[in-house]
Amino acid sequence: MALNVTVDGVQMDQHPYLPLASQTLFNAKASKKLSFEDIARSIGRNEVATAAIFYGQASASAEDIQGLSSLLDIPREQLFQQLSGFPDRGRSVEMPPREPLIYRLYEIVQNYGYAYKAILNEKFGDGIMSAIAFSTDVKKEIDPQGNSWAVITMRGKWLPYSRF
Amino acid sequence: MALNVTVDGVQMDQHPYLPLASQTLFNAKASKKLSFEDIARSIGRNEVATAAIFYGQASASAEDIQGLSSLLDIPREQLFQQLSGFPDRGRSVEMPPREPLIYRLYEIVQNYGYAYKAILNEKFGDGIMSAIAFSTDVKKEIDPQGNSWAVITMRGKWLPYSRF
Amino acid sequence: MALNVTVDGVQMDQHPYLPLASQTLFNAKASKKLSFEDIARSIGRNEVATAAIFYGQASASAEDIQGLSSLLDIPREQLFQQLSGFPDRGRSVEMPPREPLIYRLYEIVQNYGYAYKAILNEKFGDGIMSAIAFSTDVKKEIDPQGNSWAVITMRGKWLPYSRF
Amino acid sequence: MALNVTVDGVQMDQHPYLPLASQTLFNAKASKKLSFEDIARSIGRNEVATAAIFYGQASASAEDIQGLSSLLDIPREQLFQQLSGFPDRGRSVEMPPREPLIYRLYEIVQNYGYAYKAILNEKFGDGIMSAIAFSTDVKKEIDPQGNSWAVITMRGKWLPYSRF
Amino acid sequence: MALNVTVDGVQMDQHPYLPLASQTLFNAKASKKLSFEDIARSIGRNEVATAAIFYGQASASAEDIQGLSSLLDIPREQLFQQLSGFPDRGRSVEMPPREPLIYRLYEIVQNYGYAYKAILNEKFGDGIMSAIAFSTDVKKEIDPQGNSWAVITMRGKWLPYSRF
Amino acid sequence: MALNVTVDGVQMDQHPYLPLASQTLFNAKASKKLSFEDIARSIGRNEVATAAIFYGQASASAEDIQGLSSLLDIPREQLFQQLSGFPDRGRSVEMPPREPLIYRLYEIVQNYGYAYKAILNEKFGDGIMSAIAFSTDVKKEIDPQGNSWAVITMRGKWLPYSRF
Amino acid sequence: MALNVTVDGVQMDQHPYLPLASQTLFNAKASKKLSFEDIARSIGRNEVATAAIFYGQASASAEDIQGLSSLLDIPREQLFQQLSGFPDRGRSVEMPPREPLIYRLYEIVQNYGYAYKAILNEKFGDGIMSAIAFSTDVKKEIDPQGNSWAVITMRGKWLPYSRF
Amino acid sequence: MALNVTVDGVQMDQHPYLPLASQTLFNAKASKKLSFEDIARSIGRNEVATAAIFYGQASASAEDIQGLSSLLDIPREQLFQQLSGFPDRGRSVEMPPREPLIYRLYEIVQNYGYAYKAILNEKFGDGIMSAIAFSTDVKKEIDPQGNSWAVITMRGKWLPYSRF
Amino acid sequence: MALNVTVDGVQMDQHPYLPLASQTLFNAKASKKLSFEDIARSIGRNEVATAAIFYGQASASAEDIQGLSSLLDIPREQLFQQLSGFPDRGRSVEMPPREPLIYRLYEIVQNYGYAYKAILNEKFGDGIMSAIAFSTDVKKEIDPQGNSWAVITMRGKWLPYSRF
Amino acid sequence: MALNVTVDGVQMDQHPYLPLASQTLFNAKASKKLSFEDIARSIGRNEVATAAIFYGQASASAEDIQGLSSLLDIPREQLFQQLSGFPDRGRSVEMPPREPLIYRLYEIVQNYGYAYKAILNEKFGDGIMSAIAFSTDVKKEIDPQGNSWAVITMRGKWLPYSRF
Repeated sequence: MALNVTVDGVQMDQHPYLPLASQTLFNAKASKKLSFEDIARSIGRNEVATAAIFYGQASASAEDIQGLSSLLDIPREQLFQQLSGFPDRGRSVEMPPREPLIYRLYEIVQNYGYAYKAILNEKFGDGIMSAIAFSTDVKKEIDPQGNSWAVITMRGKWLPYSRF
Repeated sequence: MALNVTVDGVQMDQHPYLPLASQTLFNAKASKKLSFEDIARSIGRNEVATAAIFYGQASASAEDIQGLSSLLDIPREQLFQQLSGFPDRGRSVEMPPREPLIYRLYEIVQNYGYAYKAILNEKFGDGIMSAIAFSTDVKKEIDPQGNSWAVITMRGKWLPYSRF
Repeated sequence: MALNVTVDGVQMDQHPYLPLASQTLFNAKASKKLSFEDIARSIGRNEVATAAIFYGQASASAEDIQGLSSLLDIPREQLFQQLSGFPDRGRSVEMPPREPLIYRLYEIVQNYGYAYKAILNEKFGDGIMSAIAFSTDVKKEIDPQGNSWAVITMRGKWLPYSRF
Repeated sequence: MALNVTVDGVQMDQHPYLPLASQTLFNAKASKKLSFEDIARSIGRNEVATAAIFYGQASASAEDIQGLSSLLDIPREQLFQQLSGFPDRGRSVEMPPREPLIYRLYEIVQNYGYAYKAILNEKFGDGIMSAIAFSTDVKKEIDPQGNSWAVITMRGKWLPYSRF
Repeated sequence: MALNVTVDGVQMDQHPYLPLASQTLFNAKASKKLSFEDIARSIGRNEVATAAIFYGQASASAEDIQGLSSLLDIPREQLFQQLSGFPDRGRSVEMPPREPLIYRLYEIVQNYGYAYKAILNEKFGDGIMSAIAFSTDVKKEIDPQGNSWAVITMRGKWLPYSRF
Repeated sequence: MALNVTVDGVQMDQHPYLPLASQTLFNAKASKKLSFEDIARSIGRNEVATAAIFYGQASASAEDIQGLSSLLDIPREQLFQQLSGFPDRGRSVEMPPREPLIYRLYEIVQNYGYAYKAILNEKFGDGIMSAIAFSTDVKKEIDPQGNSWAVITMRGKWLPYSRF
Repeated sequence: MALNVTVDGVQMDQHPYLPLASQTLFNAKASKKLSFEDIARSIGRNEVATAAIFYGQASASAEDIQGLSSLLDIPREQLFQQLSGFPDRGRSVEMPPREPLIYRLYEIVQNYGYAYKAILNEKFGDGIMSAIAFSTDVKKEIDPQGNSWAVITMRGKWLPYSRF
Repeated sequence: MALNVTVDGVQMDQHPYLPLASQTLFNAKASKKLSFEDIARSIGRNEVATAAIFYGQASASAEDIQGLSSLLDIPREQLFQQLSGFPDRGRSVEMPPREPLIYRLYEIVQNYGYAYKAILNEKFGDGIMSAIAFSTDVKKEIDPQGNSWAVITMRGKWLPYSRF
Repeated sequence: MALNVTVDGVQMDQHPYLPLASQTLFNAKASKKLSFEDIARSIGRNEVATAAIFYGQASASAEDIQGLSSLLDIPREQLFQQLSGFPDRGRSVEMPPREPLIYRLYEIVQNYGYAYKAILNEKFGDGIMSAIAFSTDVKKEIDPQGNSWAVITMRGKWLPYSRF
Repeated sequence: MALNVTVDGVQMDQHPYLPLASQTLFNAKASKKLSFEDIARSIGRNEVATAAIFYGQASASAEDIQGLSSLLDIPREQLFQQLSGFPDRGRSVEMPPREPLIYRLYEIVQNYGYAYKAILNEKFGDGIMSAIAFSTDVKKEIDPQGNSWAVITMRGKWLPYSRF
């Protein structure tokens, strides 16, 4: 195991299955001291999608790569080579998640899974909410007492089961 | 294993760990032919929370029990006895979920878990989004092409890690 | 555990998570001595889909229920009550499958999974083949040497990942 | 862990159990900018089988190695040495699959496994569809509405259980 | 599965591995409408230990049984027969815990396990904190802002590793 | 795998998922021959929290980093770079724990989990003890017979489930 | 759980997933006091295959059923109904096996698996030994010192991988 | 991870737990272009045992080491040092096996495990077939139709349970 | 699930896989108020072996059955029928054990496993200590300070690996 | 992965979680050609404990380190640095054990676990045999027929459960 390289929030040795692009991107982000909000705004994508690109969980278009290359000062050829393939998704989180923040999301699925299914079936019939034709967003709210609340929105196309 | 009793969307033998209240409630819902939307509106609660009560994953207040008893014609004493305890949560979904609809939610956590963490940490600092001080909601949208979309909103209080 | 009831190819105690409808349907099929091919032709559905209804893995429309009720001499009201809910899928096969026939399909996914992904990504881009907007079919072929071959066809809609 | 080497769609560190040949082949494919369709046509094999060779999941004959060596400009001796052994199959996909595309295939087995078994048993008797005397194919279809559909065909010899 | 019997906070079908005494005790507690605090004070034991007796996780002395019999109106002979054996511990919680309250305790072990070990080793040397020569207690605190805090204290004998 | 580097109580190769900061901190602690008690007192934090920082399980503030840098003679810039990110928690202990000391804590959760839940629910209602708004402490006691006892205190904010 | 019924070497409650035929056959075998050797000779099948029929792991032909019915005094109609379906194999042994005798076979696979593969590949090329076109036999040998040895022979058709 | 070294049928990176001797032996075997049959005949051992030595699953005597050293041109001192220890068995196959050839053997245990136990118990009484006082052999047969069959023989001493 | 029947130290519903004989024996032992020491002495066997018979983990000879029948007033025919088969071992303890007493034995194997192997290999060569040609014993010792110590002795025949 | 270093009975790459001290000690033991019996006698400790120190599963006192340093010609400073920490136990054996010798010990716990518990509870009351205040020993016996027997003795302090 060679020298550990720390990047802002990601250390490759702790995430051995992340692609090489992750290291390149997180290193550049750390040295530029940019937030995902900054980067997302610059390349015209959602923050979560932007972070997902960094973690190898979403694909980047040619324009995205161009934008990231310019903003982060990464040679375009290098970034294109590392980032233009098809993501090999599902490799960043081990399930069940051990990270408390991610575990809370898992717990929501564990506790409310059948309640979601019941409501969705009643509203839409027999089918699923797509996780592919899908987008998601994170917002911050401050309530009148000054407490912060995180609001996650997930929007997926409804896919009815085919009759055959 | 005694005779299987089918109820609308829930068959107790398929969910051996659900509490007795689930059977009572689903049976009454089926014979009354009411949707969760009907029931939720009647007792003044959110649809997902209402379904979660049916699945033993959320607690019902005295008024909720009174309202369910009236609407569903379940003897109040019986429902109170079955429903007034503290829920033993986490028993309805086996993880990883085998139900395709619920699996899609699990997959979202698996794929976007670290992206959510990155964005939430940047917006709020070191902490978690609570799954307890938490509410959730399901909406249906129809896009201009006539496609249906499911929108799930999750709203949780931000809890910063204590310094000690 | 009450008395085991054997039905053609399905014994409920061996499949404790199948819905009540499975027992009704398999019992009737056995006493009528009908094949899935017979039943599928009669109700106008694919054989695999028909068997999937019997195993609680596919939904039956009102006409399907009507057709099954007539063909199998099951009281329509009873079948409607048992079969009209939303399937709770994924409960018939424990993974990894221990049944050798089903294991072979699992092995195909295990061995050729990334090859399928590579070919599908090159042909369609970043996305998945839907298992929901999906149909499947089984055929028997006899080669010139008299050997039998099974041919399984799977056809799923291509879903590209949303850009967000 | 030495330097990560990215190749088109395969990064060795993300697939630590792939054989050395995978790295050689994917590197050459990337620098030649060839698709599996190109390569399969050139060596006269099916696309899925060709990708399976790249992933170490299928064996290559002497002619295949010769063909790949010529097409991809890999020294023949090197490729022969890396590719002429017997594949150690089953090492590319971790089960259950975390990759969403591959998971969909797994889900099909999970949901339709017993339906396939029922239909195959009725058509062929007691036995299995071989995954060894087996071929598979992927096709792309466009329906009248312009939607893309993926069609996977699996063809395996029927093996009846021996009586002994 | 016979009729589910609900008791305050425990439904035997949801906890199939609890001993018969659990059902007897929880039924009596529910009909007497007593809290564990009431019961613990009456029999002179700690609340957690008292609840652990109810869940079959701690042993009851002859006086405990006598006290429980009197307070809960359970025939002494019956309770003695059900409760005087040696507990078969570890059967109430499936690990990892799916119940959110219990999961939080599990998460504390997961996150702080090595920190506890480091501090304990520095303070006591090479050994463990006993979970047998052990007691625990739960307290409620209200801070000046009116927030409630739960305080769990665990006290275990330090056992140094034998030198041999 | 490069040369193993031993540090006091932590050897990186035995904990492959610890962040780079762990190695830096444990190395410095070993060469300075300081206990966690010394370090905690110096930076004004609790011992367990201090050890948790070393294991990458708790975040360090700018002052903590400053304090650690001074006390341990680690270049401030280096420590800031390695330690200022958001912890990726849950990576130090594999569950179930194999280390006997940590296993004892796990066993306490396994045996007393439902007893804790029952007592907490009776005292506080439906909710959980937070593991985030949380602190913990370790004390050493000597009883009159000269035996050592470890006392672990856990204090977490009570979070009632939201009604929605 | 109803009354346990003990049969020679099989108690249904210990093997909850065995088909109903197992109970019928083992009961009759016990009351007739016949060995598998007796039964196998009578119906003209191998002993292991005969036992496999009893455990629901092999199919019985019409003549087998006729022979078993006569020998064991089981009404032919009843046995035909219970035994004429297609076996749902793989349900008798939980893997890894906990039974020491069966574990030893598992250990042989674990220890010699790759050695078998190496030898088989060198002798036959790329393929597998079929477990379907397969027979097996058990023999007893006594060596000159009077020690007993068990000899298990497995004979499977060699299936070469198809080239496609 | 350093450069992958391919050897005939074994690539060390794919088998990270094999001992160093495996690499030495497989490299020499590949460069000498010898089969296990050649090697086994030369050192006077069974083929499976010989392959098991290569995979670190069987011990080599001093004469075996001498023979392998001569035949394979490996310095005797080096081989003696790498091969003279006690094997750390069970490290080559992950269970359940993912390799199809090895899986078939596993499936035989899974399907016929209790049938073997029943027959062995009837023939020998209460005990096990040893996997230690054990030998095994692989043969190739060609049937009159020209089909190849693999025949695996396992011979183990019968060990009766001690009475105590 | 029918009425739970409590027996001294064993409640069948908590051990669903124990044979029927366990219930018969434990019931009789409880009503006779005999210890295993009493019973072992009476039938002339070791205490651990006697308890193992009760748990279905050891076989009973005809004399053992005769002795147990007399001592415990169980009809001889009934006991013979329930106890004369071949034990289906390994069904009483789920691994890893959740019972703290049994876990400690498991932990000893986990911690000292390789140390035992090293010492045994050095003393005996390449082989194993048999768990079949095996006996075990439990003793109580009181040290001069009045502390109780448990001493478990395990004695197994050494089996050298066959050379083949 | 750097060059594998073989040591007598331990190869670090096969035991990636062993501490650095293991490599130092096993290398020195191999070059000195000393048995654990030699070493144990020299440092005045039990053989199993000595091997446990080599495997990082037991702590070494200052005198042990001094003794090992002298006997094995390891620089005292180096050994002190590597060996003076607190062991991180439980890392050498993966459970369930795949090594046949260690598996036999695991099987003893699996088969006799509840028998041990029953006997120990009857002899000592409610409690456990400590694995910390514990010693163990291995002896070799030759019976009159010349057979070798291994005798393992485990002696642990009895810890009664605290009443609280």
